[in-house]
Amino acid sequence: MVRRLKNAQLQTLSLDSGSAVPLHQQLFLALRSAILEGRLLPDTRLPSSRTLASDLGISRNTVLSAYDQLTAEGYLVSRIGAGSFVSDQLPDDLLERKRREEETPGVKTRDIYLSRMAATLKGAPPMRQYRGLPFSPGLPALDEFPFEDWARLLARHWRRPKREFLVDNPVGGARVLRDAIARHLGQTRAVRCHADQVIVLSGSQQAIHLVVRAFAEPGDSIWMEEPGFPGIRESIIGAGARPVSVPVDAEGFSLQNARALAPEARLACISPSHQYPLGQTMSLARRIELLTWAKEEGRFILEDDYDSEYRYAGRPLSSLQGLDDDSRVLYVGTMSKVMFSGLRVGYMVVPEDLVDMFLAFRRTIDSHSPSVPEAALADFISEGYLAAHIRRMRLLYEQRQNALLALLKDRLGDILTVEPQESGMHLVAYLPPDYQDKEIERAALQSGMMVRALSGFYSLPTEENGLILGFAGTAEKEMPQLVDKLRDIILKRGR
Amino acid sequence: MVRRLKNAQLQTLSLDSGSAVPLHQQLFLALRSAILEGRLLPDTRLPSSRTLASDLGISRNTVLSAYDQLTAEGYLVSRIGAGSFVSDQLPDDLLERKRREEETPGVKTRDIYLSRMAATLKGAPPMRQYRGLPFSPGLPALDEFPFEDWARLLARHWRRPKREFLVDNPVGGARVLRDAIARHLGQTRAVRCHADQVIVLSGSQQAIHLVVRAFAEPGDSIWMEEPGFPGIRESIIGAGARPVSVPVDAEGFSLQNARALAPEARLACISPSHQYPLGQTMSLARRIELLTWAKEEGRFILEDDYDSEYRYAGRPLSSLQGLDDDSRVLYVGTMSKVMFSGLRVGYMVVPEDLVDMFLAFRRTIDSHSPSVPEAALADFISEGYLAAHIRRMRLLYEQRQNALLALLKDRLGDILTVEPQESGMHLVAYLPPDYQDKEIERAALQSGMMVRALSGFYSLPTEENGLILGFAGTAEKEMPQLVDKLRDIILKRGR
Repeated sequence: MVRRLKNAQLQTLSLDSGSAVPLHQQLFLALRSAILEGRLLPDTRLPSSRTLASDLGISRNTVLSAYDQLTAEGYLVSRIGAGSFVSDQLPDDLLERKRREEETPGVKTRDIYLSRMAATLKGAPPMRQYRGLPFSPGLPALDEFPFEDWARLLARHWRRPKREFLVDNPVGGARVLRDAIARHLGQTRAVRCHADQVIVLSGSQQAIHLVVRAFAEPGDSIWMEEPGFPGIRESIIGAGARPVSVPVDAEGFSLQNARALAPEARLACISPSHQYPLGQTMSLARRIELLTWAKEEGRFILEDDYDSEYRYAGRPLSSLQGLDDDSRVLYVGTMSKVMFSGLRVGYMVVPEDLVDMFLAFRRTIDSHSPSVPEAALADFISEGYLAAHIRRMRLLYEQRQNALLALLKDRLGDILTVEPQESGMHLVAYLPPDYQDKEIERAALQSGMMVRALSGFYSLPTEENGLILGFAGTAEKEMPQLVDKLRDIILKRGR
Repeated sequence: MVRRLKNAQLQTLSLDSGSAVPLHQQLFLALRSAILEGRLLPDTRLPSSRTLASDLGISRNTVLSAYDQLTAEGYLVSRIGAGSFVSDQLPDDLLERKRREEETPGVKTRDIYLSRMAATLKGAPPMRQYRGLPFSPGLPALDEFPFEDWARLLARHWRRPKREFLVDNPVGGARVLRDAIARHLGQTRAVRCHADQVIVLSGSQQAIHLVVRAFAEPGDSIWMEEPGFPGIRESIIGAGARPVSVPVDAEGFSLQNARALAPEARLACISPSHQYPLGQTMSLARRIELLTWAKEEGRFILEDDYDSEYRYAGRPLSSLQGLDDDSRVLYVGTMSKVMFSGLRVGYMVVPEDLVDMFLAFRRTIDSHSPSVPEAALADFISEGYLAAHIRRMRLLYEQRQNALLALLKDRLGDILTVEPQESGMHLVAYLPPDYQDKEIERAALQSGMMVRALSGFYSLPTEENGLILGFAGTAEKEMPQLVDKLRDIILKRGR
């Protein structure tokens, strides 16, 4: 049966010549909807392209283009000498279903079978972005970064990129960058490695993910520090494993505490050089104890060495990796603190016999990082820009720490207990028990400051109560006003 | 008991003033090794800094610096008025162990408990890099890319980067890029989405990883196409799931075949617009059948739309996503083919009710992509550079396909059966059964050509026998010589 298109059906074809969507595409979509929704039934004959073009006031080529596409996709069939018809090969159930839905409007329910891991994430609140607010811990001095130099190094590589940097980039990162990082770590952190052991990643988060999934089956226990970096907890959970929070003390991570909580842990994730967020250094005895555990039990240690570059008193302590004589340490570092986190470059140093496994594994989750920026970064390191920037920032951050410390003692000394930090980018200011750090965090955020509650770094209920105050990314001249604002918040909202 | 350092022990301290490692660091490492290896015993008194400096012919500050670090790390203790001593707090077992190892040299065996997934990857051969050899499938014309324009857009953003592009980048990608991609996909692929549904990733590999892990528990079945893209298989295995290869036919992926093989599959990974590598388009009836399955069973479909931009005959077919009325399709695209893979930008378009879950999940594996290049890419799209480049490449690739086709017919027409492709970047040339495609692939690789064996895209033993020849990235003037070389290889090594 041949049906003829009624004029009324053409009314639904409203095209908008001002839209960014080309007219032929609009017409295609409109006719397709009409077919799928049953407004144009199978075997209906469409007007000739000339007629429809004239009716709609558009060019004939536009109509032909839409008809061609509908024909190519099987919605129309073209019969020689007779014109274009709606296909009768469209499954009835699709057409039926469309009509049924329109007759029963309302809230759509749908079945979704998610993996257990995805189901736990489904309820997560949308993520907040803080855009580097004052006092954010780990926020570097963005205004001080030599962007002109960086842009120039990048442009040098992008204008005439090497062919090998454009396709099939090595999974572990551009050779020049792996070399530069290996040299840099050997000199500054006493990391013992050659360049093949360096794997460049999109950040330390990716390193944690890879390491956890490499050593733990879903449900296996992983030790982390309490208090500790929440991103590690998220990564452990995201990888399907179970984070076990091990209380730290003045000597840092304690194997004894850890064994008492979960003797069978697969992996220890620690920050031995500068505990996050409290700032202590893991003692040598504890380091050796943990390395011995790893060797004897055949386990591994993830060393998160996130900000050791900034040390104001004494010298940077060597890495745990450099002490390790049984290749049990996965060393993780990042450019987020010495450059900025939006660069998205981190790295790990892995034992030689695990390099191929980690490369193969990394390839399954995101192939590799872009080589051209890696080559520019290698220049930035090798040509001394990075070291010069770190030196400048070390002096600047020291001044900023001193300034913030003086202001806190002067204006909040009656409430906060705060000591200088030998290294890093933030202060820990303790509150008396009758103040609520999370309440202060919330109120400060509303005033445009990112003052993190110390208790928020604990996974279990805690008596600890204080504020983590980043000093590196906040200009000295802005500090008095900010501290005054903080004082008001603490006095008003704290108790 | 106080021990005195003997001169002989100092002999082991060989420092190299020409090394990139600073002298104080060399001295620190040398003394630390001597302590850990038991050559310097607990309570040994070290020479004064002045004496050691003089003995070694280095500055006193260098020695002081090394001593300070050894003291800070607990290897030395300083007794006022008496000098520096090796600590007696070093656990004996560490020192013992060191000595024992030295007495029993030989192959080191070590226990490694890897997750099952990592264990399967451990045996994987090291990865090969092909550096974009001629005939590589998916290799674009790198020489034709407007790098000057691209470098200029990048530099514009890097010289004076917005603060929000440097820290706390949004997990889903810079807003401007999500907007640009949503518009681009709506216009060119009839993808129906708003910008919030676009998640910018480091490539399609990452999209596959996220989708597989979101919908499958370890061990669950995932349908993929047979033949199909080996990277999908790797990702499915890397995510702990089980790939089920479903034979395609002239209409593409077949639900009937799939159900017969694994009725309980959680997800279907398909390339409906241009089957990889055979090139057919999934028919409308099959599309509707699969969407109905997903809706009725509460399952999902990953649509890999990897190279639909290059179409030489007819118009690009619309995406499966645009047909989907129950939000069952995860649409995956990439900039690797229209720009180059070293850019590391891909994206997925996900149903609205899964956006937050995918963002939270992505954050656990690598946080986010760098925003500054994303902003430059948004300009590249919005200011028309991308569309202009694609138009130029479409013409160029059409010429290149025709040229290669003519050469193959002329010089290998007696052996190869090859038809023009309506779209994409590669030809499929079938071999008679008495030739060995994998043998030809290996020999061609040794001659510097990347001619992929068709049988290598099958996971099961197959009768299929042929060569996948990328034409997009190979200059026309180089083709005659390459085809002659290929002819020699086929004649010599094929049978």
